[in-house]
Amino acid sequence: MLTRSVCAADYKEVISVLNEWWGGRQMTDMLPKLFFVHFQNTSFIIEKDGRIIGFLIGFISQTYLNEAYVHFVGVHPKYRKKGIAKRLYELFFEAVQKRGCEIVRCLTSPANHTSIAFHTKMGFQIEKGDYEVNGISIHKDYDGQGQERVLFVKYLKLE
Amino acid sequence: MLTRSVCAADYKEVISVLNEWWGGRQMTDMLPKLFFVHFQNTSFIIEKDGRIIGFLIGFISQTYLNEAYVHFVGVHPKYRKKGIAKRLYELFFEAVQKRGCEIVRCLTSPANHTSIAFHTKMGFQIEKGDYEVNGISIHKDYDGQGQERVLFVKYLKLE
Repeated sequence: MLTRSVCAADYKEVISVLNEWWGGRQMTDMLPKLFFVHFQNTSFIIEKDGRIIGFLIGFISQTYLNEAYVHFVGVHPKYRKKGIAKRLYELFFEAVQKRGCEIVRCLTSPANHTSIAFHTKMGFQIEKGDYEVNGISIHKDYDGQGQERVLFVKYLKLE
Repeated sequence: MLTRSVCAADYKEVISVLNEWWGGRQMTDMLPKLFFVHFQNTSFIIEKDGRIIGFLIGFISQTYLNEAYVHFVGVHPKYRKKGIAKRLYELFFEAVQKRGCEIVRCLTSPANHTSIAFHTKMGFQIEKGDYEVNGISIHKDYDGQGQERVLFVKYLKLE
């Protein structure tokens, strides 16, 4: 396995498998090429035998300079539960910490229990929202009407 | 009319009118709240009588530090052809120039003739793509399969 930064040319391969990796959900509108062009220093690829098997797209907040945000993480369905997402997050934490960030944020849908469990295991806390369902705090209409989200925050350890 | 920077609380109002302003097209997936949270210094609102009538969402490239990118610009249908988009772009140019940018990029769909005419008038050049239609150079599959784009670039004048 090879880990490296994202480059613009990766977009074509990632976008062609995106909906498939998400079990047929229409995801491509949420990932325009701009993220592969303008946030390369904080976005990563994991390859195996010359094919992309995982990617993370993240950036540093331009409003809050000590905060970083993970926008999108995907792992090839055949390579799940092998620590690939964990490795991508570790690369991201290291990159943003080097650039002065102490806080990492990201979010997921309340229905994505795998994602909630993963982020909790990775040391993220759930931010208090508008109401709770099964003990999980939810932000109502966060990404537009009916678009509920679970918000995560992680405080990076100062070294 | 009041011009100001975007704040996170603007998202609710903007996202609730977005599809309507685009003539019923499904646009909301392309504008998650993150842009209203993390790129406030380079994103702007124009208000009239306490209501948002125009907005621009842009950021500085984290790969190319002298480049800025305009992601989304919207104007209330009743307030078009009044120079509001022009004013938003001017605010953006000023903000990113102050932060060391010399280049601004953005893109549109080939079918959006109004946008192509507007950007040309604003001093943007069209970047050479894969083929031409009616004299307009087009990048094939730029934002995924079938997602053709016209790419614009503007070189800001050094002062």
